[in-house]
Amino acid sequence: MSLEKLFIPESIAVIGASSKKRKIGYEILENIIEYGYKGKVYPININEKEIMGLKAYKSILDVKADIDLAVIAIPAKFVPSVVLECGKKGVKAVIIISSGFSEIGDSKTETLLVEIAKKYGMRILGPNVFGVVYTPHCLNATFGPRDILKGNIAFVTQSGAIGIALMDKTRAENIGLSAVVSVGNKADIDDSDLLDFLKDDKNTKVILLYIEGLKKGRKFLESALETSFKKPIIAIKSGRTEKGAKAAASHTGSLAGSDKVFSAAFNQVGILRADTMGEAFEWARMLSLSPIPKGERCLIITNGGGVGVLATDACEKEGIKLLDDYKYLEDTFKPLIPEFGSAKNPIDITGQSREDSYKIILRKALEEEKIDSIIILYCEAAVVDTDKFAEYIIEEVKNAKTKKPVVVSLIGGEKGEKALTKLNKNGVPSFEEPERAVYTMTALYKWWRFANRKKSKKKRDIMMDKEKIYSIINKAREEGRLQLLEQEAKDILKACGLDLPKYKLATTIEEALKAAEKIGYPIVLKIVSEDIIHKSDIGGVKVGIKNAKELKNAYKEIMYRAKKRYPKANIRGILVNEMVEKGVEIIVGCSEDPQFGPVIMFGLGGIYVEVLKDVAFRVAPIDKEDALDMIDDIKSYPLLYGVRGEKRKDINSLAENISLLSYFSHEIPEIVEMDVNPLIVLEEGCKIVDVRMTLKEV
Amino acid sequence: MSLEKLFIPESIAVIGASSKKRKIGYEILENIIEYGYKGKVYPININEKEIMGLKAYKSILDVKADIDLAVIAIPAKFVPSVVLECGKKGVKAVIIISSGFSEIGDSKTETLLVEIAKKYGMRILGPNVFGVVYTPHCLNATFGPRDILKGNIAFVTQSGAIGIALMDKTRAENIGLSAVVSVGNKADIDDSDLLDFLKDDKNTKVILLYIEGLKKGRKFLESALETSFKKPIIAIKSGRTEKGAKAAASHTGSLAGSDKVFSAAFNQVGILRADTMGEAFEWARMLSLSPIPKGERCLIITNGGGVGVLATDACEKEGIKLLDDYKYLEDTFKPLIPEFGSAKNPIDITGQSREDSYKIILRKALEEEKIDSIIILYCEAAVVDTDKFAEYIIEEVKNAKTKKPVVVSLIGGEKGEKALTKLNKNGVPSFEEPERAVYTMTALYKWWRFANRKKSKKKRDIMMDKEKIYSIINKAREEGRLQLLEQEAKDILKACGLDLPKYKLATTIEEALKAAEKIGYPIVLKIVSEDIIHKSDIGGVKVGIKNAKELKNAYKEIMYRAKKRYPKANIRGILVNEMVEKGVEIIVGCSEDPQFGPVIMFGLGGIYVEVLKDVAFRVAPIDKEDALDMIDDIKSYPLLYGVRGEKRKDINSLAENISLLSYFSHEIPEIVEMDVNPLIVLEEGCKIVDVRMTLKEV
Repeated sequence: MSLEKLFIPESIAVIGASSKKRKIGYEILENIIEYGYKGKVYPININEKEIMGLKAYKSILDVKADIDLAVIAIPAKFVPSVVLECGKKGVKAVIIISSGFSEIGDSKTETLLVEIAKKYGMRILGPNVFGVVYTPHCLNATFGPRDILKGNIAFVTQSGAIGIALMDKTRAENIGLSAVVSVGNKADIDDSDLLDFLKDDKNTKVILLYIEGLKKGRKFLESALETSFKKPIIAIKSGRTEKGAKAAASHTGSLAGSDKVFSAAFNQVGILRADTMGEAFEWARMLSLSPIPKGERCLIITNGGGVGVLATDACEKEGIKLLDDYKYLEDTFKPLIPEFGSAKNPIDITGQSREDSYKIILRKALEEEKIDSIIILYCEAAVVDTDKFAEYIIEEVKNAKTKKPVVVSLIGGEKGEKALTKLNKNGVPSFEEPERAVYTMTALYKWWRFANRKKSKKKRDIMMDKEKIYSIINKAREEGRLQLLEQEAKDILKACGLDLPKYKLATTIEEALKAAEKIGYPIVLKIVSEDIIHKSDIGGVKVGIKNAKELKNAYKEIMYRAKKRYPKANIRGILVNEMVEKGVEIIVGCSEDPQFGPVIMFGLGGIYVEVLKDVAFRVAPIDKEDALDMIDDIKSYPLLYGVRGEKRKDINSLAENISLLSYFSHEIPEIVEMDVNPLIVLEEGCKIVDVRMTLKEV
Repeated sequence: MSLEKLFIPESIAVIGASSKKRKIGYEILENIIEYGYKGKVYPININEKEIMGLKAYKSILDVKADIDLAVIAIPAKFVPSVVLECGKKGVKAVIIISSGFSEIGDSKTETLLVEIAKKYGMRILGPNVFGVVYTPHCLNATFGPRDILKGNIAFVTQSGAIGIALMDKTRAENIGLSAVVSVGNKADIDDSDLLDFLKDDKNTKVILLYIEGLKKGRKFLESALETSFKKPIIAIKSGRTEKGAKAAASHTGSLAGSDKVFSAAFNQVGILRADTMGEAFEWARMLSLSPIPKGERCLIITNGGGVGVLATDACEKEGIKLLDDYKYLEDTFKPLIPEFGSAKNPIDITGQSREDSYKIILRKALEEEKIDSIIILYCEAAVVDTDKFAEYIIEEVKNAKTKKPVVVSLIGGEKGEKALTKLNKNGVPSFEEPERAVYTMTALYKWWRFANRKKSKKKRDIMMDKEKIYSIINKAREEGRLQLLEQEAKDILKACGLDLPKYKLATTIEEALKAAEKIGYPIVLKIVSEDIIHKSDIGGVKVGIKNAKELKNAYKEIMYRAKKRYPKANIRGILVNEMVEKGVEIIVGCSEDPQFGPVIMFGLGGIYVEVLKDVAFRVAPIDKEDALDMIDDIKSYPLLYGVRGEKRKDINSLAENISLLSYFSHEIPEIVEMDVNPLIVLEEGCKIVDVRMTLKEV
């Protein structure tokens, strides 16, 4: 069911409304009335007859008219019966302000509330929230600050304390909001429901999320991906580090997944992850105010070489591309700046220039087709009228025929602070530190690049012989095994279309000889037994076997050692394998993330994964393009391009393998863990030499 | 000569003083007078008789009384003759405001100015500066903002524009300064002179440097090291990235060294490198206000779980150690907080608590011996009187018997902003973002750790046979070679006490056989010729030679190949080397950094250095402790601890080798480049298998 009635209700009941100041039921009712809500409001209170001049009702059932939204602010123990009443009354959405549910360990009651709501087709926000604001309809159903400025940023927060404090901050800093939603325990409505609504909300241009943990990670990613193509999502995700994650777990009771996986997942769906709250709001302001760039070429204008360097540093670090056609820059700007200035990028108009120089250069930069975005740096100087500087910038940006992203950094004193406020109020995102100006520009570009690049994203259609796969899985289940045997796992990958060296299980020397003959020497022998996990350690593997004689000896030796070490092991035989030539060894792992389900990990074999932890993550499945990105993500990737005279390896084939494995792990949820180790990348093609699979416990 | 008269002059002449508003000579004179300078002031101007009520002189030589400081603000072309007059007059220090010297390519005149000054025992600040402020003596000899607040932060800036703008900012943000120095072209007085003065200046507690480039890097580091033990130095170094460095080079004409080397050098001498200007001032404020901690155990107090997580994340990332004796925390704080609060660290007093809860918890935390520092987080909430909250914090911090570092993060609206200002004005460093509160605490701890750990730092006394070393160098010079032969380079390292495998140069097969007999098989043969650089590529190296027969064949083959490929090469013979067992291969490089002189680089051989760029730098020389730190700096260091069943390598011996090599490169400046590649780290000891040395061009 849509959330429309949560944001745009035609009537509201406040259950637990109160005429006593400082009570939450008082604050909410007062906010609803005073913020200018235009619909009908019904206070519900067992003891009172009139509250704030409105007739009060004992029960919502006593109200004759229809009610769209009920806000519940009563002790937890009374909530279920009241929610039931709401259901009977035909209420469409319920906000449960009350706390005392899953956040203190009582998940049972919470589940009950959701069941009631489902039965009556109601949606629940909360419990344990401070409410909802939707400024386009003058709705402030919270006990937070009242006079929220209208604007087009929607702010969704899991933390009540931060949410309320930040609402206050937006007022102090002239940041306009379309909506504020406190999501609390997310018993029913969660971030992904809200994204689905806000994505199509015409009053919202940017969405800002404060997330401590996700309950349905994959659903969230799907909604986020769809949203990102339409409008930017900025997220703060707390619990980045181990200690932080512990604090998050005790706070909300939601499981915090590995932070690396979170970052990867956010990246995959275009979410901009901010490092701090301040940064998140700066980005939101920028993205809500700024036009979209047409291209990458950015120009810096400065009156101080020093800040020019600071900003250039930041641009390089963050991947902002500075226009570097120096001939063009010289021709265009040199005539406009003083003798000792520089027409390279940054355009340095020097400390002698006044506000009118900024005006002239900015106008030119806005007119020029070759320039896509502009960063203005100003160090307050006695010769410049700082107030006029701000006016000029505002004027030029407003009057420009071609709209381009413009940000300002202004270092200075009191006059500077006033000018900053003025610029921000008038729609030019402005900052003190040059670096922060650059970071916000970066956020804009990151979103722009994402929204442009990935527009046609469809899932691949992978051919896999599921019947075969499930017959193998079922056989293992019948035998009570969670760990698949090597040849079983290999058979499964073959059924997914992956390329494996030839192999055959032999139970006698004669079978092994036959298999070797067919595969061709040299070959590799490996013991097969569910009871022997570390095959190499007990001498259960022999490589480089060149002929029948060697094979016979090796076979006997492996069997002898295995039986000696594990006399009770169920030995299935010996796997005869084609020997793969040398290449770059890769590890690909698939596992279940608690928040996102199947994720895929990739890294170079040996010390690169184990010691250097040089790995990349993605939420599965990913296509080949994404797999190529993933390969680029690790530091040791140049080894695949061939170092020290080696030839380039088949990166294309590796990407295809990673993509296939990711689809496999996504489509066969029965396999909760898979380790492909090693996969060998050759000059042509890849070969999976060993793989382990673990089934889900049932 | 000391800089005392620059900061504490008894009399000042302003050469180029003017009675025309907006002229620099006017602004400076007005600032000196109006800021309350107590000494004598003499305006010098050829045309005027009286300026601002003071008698004006045509020349400084016309003034009868002694003059300590002259501020020169006249066109560049007149500066040399005026500086000469200053010298004759016996002036002690000269500030050359005028620009138009090395920054626009005229280094010659600048050199001349310094020569004149040296002759007369004068010191020069500039040229191309905005002046000097020294608040303890009410001196503001700048054309920047006037009413600089008194305090104990000294600010030294290479950029004029940033410097002036930031002076203004300090006024707006209530940051007190002891001194502001614009260093401009640094023709004479440079950062290191200023550090030497400020180090012993009782009015300065923290030094903040804005650096674009250094001229005498090593002198700077020496001054910085001495200073860091007494007071913290915070630095912004611009030109971090390649593009930024280019902008810096065109701006100041000073060479920007590799940024990695800068960071390493700053670390070595305890300088705190800030990422942004804003951060630098935040740290400076913290370090100037805060008491020094007694230990590492930090406590977080919060009224919101969410911000608690954000701060915990930041602490873990930055290395702040949160007190984790949970039993103690429970016993101490549980009785003081509401039922649903948490007495773990962060102490969560929940959103229901009021300002008095903060008071009680903070007081307890200040009293408790187990707690060394405190981070307070507050999300503005309706139940809390924000103004009182600030008052309580200020009160408790002021009245605490044991002084501890305390920082506050306060997220909120207008009331919050006022409270922040109040806290900062009253000596409690306070921020909006929780992360920035943590970062400043980190800066304090970083300095504290440095100042504590490294107090007894002396240079090692290394035994090296310099006579032998120079005889080798001289021989190469005589032969007109810059590249030393392998056995020459090895002889030099032996003369420094380093451990090398046995080797002997042989010019005939017989000599080679004898040498091999003495060294013991297996051996390695290598061609020796200044004309053959890539020995391996032409088959000039043979390893693993097991006996006399193999040696004879190998000797002949090497000679044959070398002569065939390089018929004109001057072949000196073949080096017979002891064969070294397998171990971890290391590269140690020494080279001349343009700013810091000899620097040493270290990394693991092969792809680790070449592909992964996993290297650490230090300015040479370093002792063994520093070398151990350096080993810890690289990501691949676990390989030395033994992975995949290998034994731990002799890291101690490696550190000793790195230290010796660093001393060598420092004490023998004739060798401008050295590549030890590989050095093999064994389970016991290290062996240098190959080394190349290049002499300085003369």
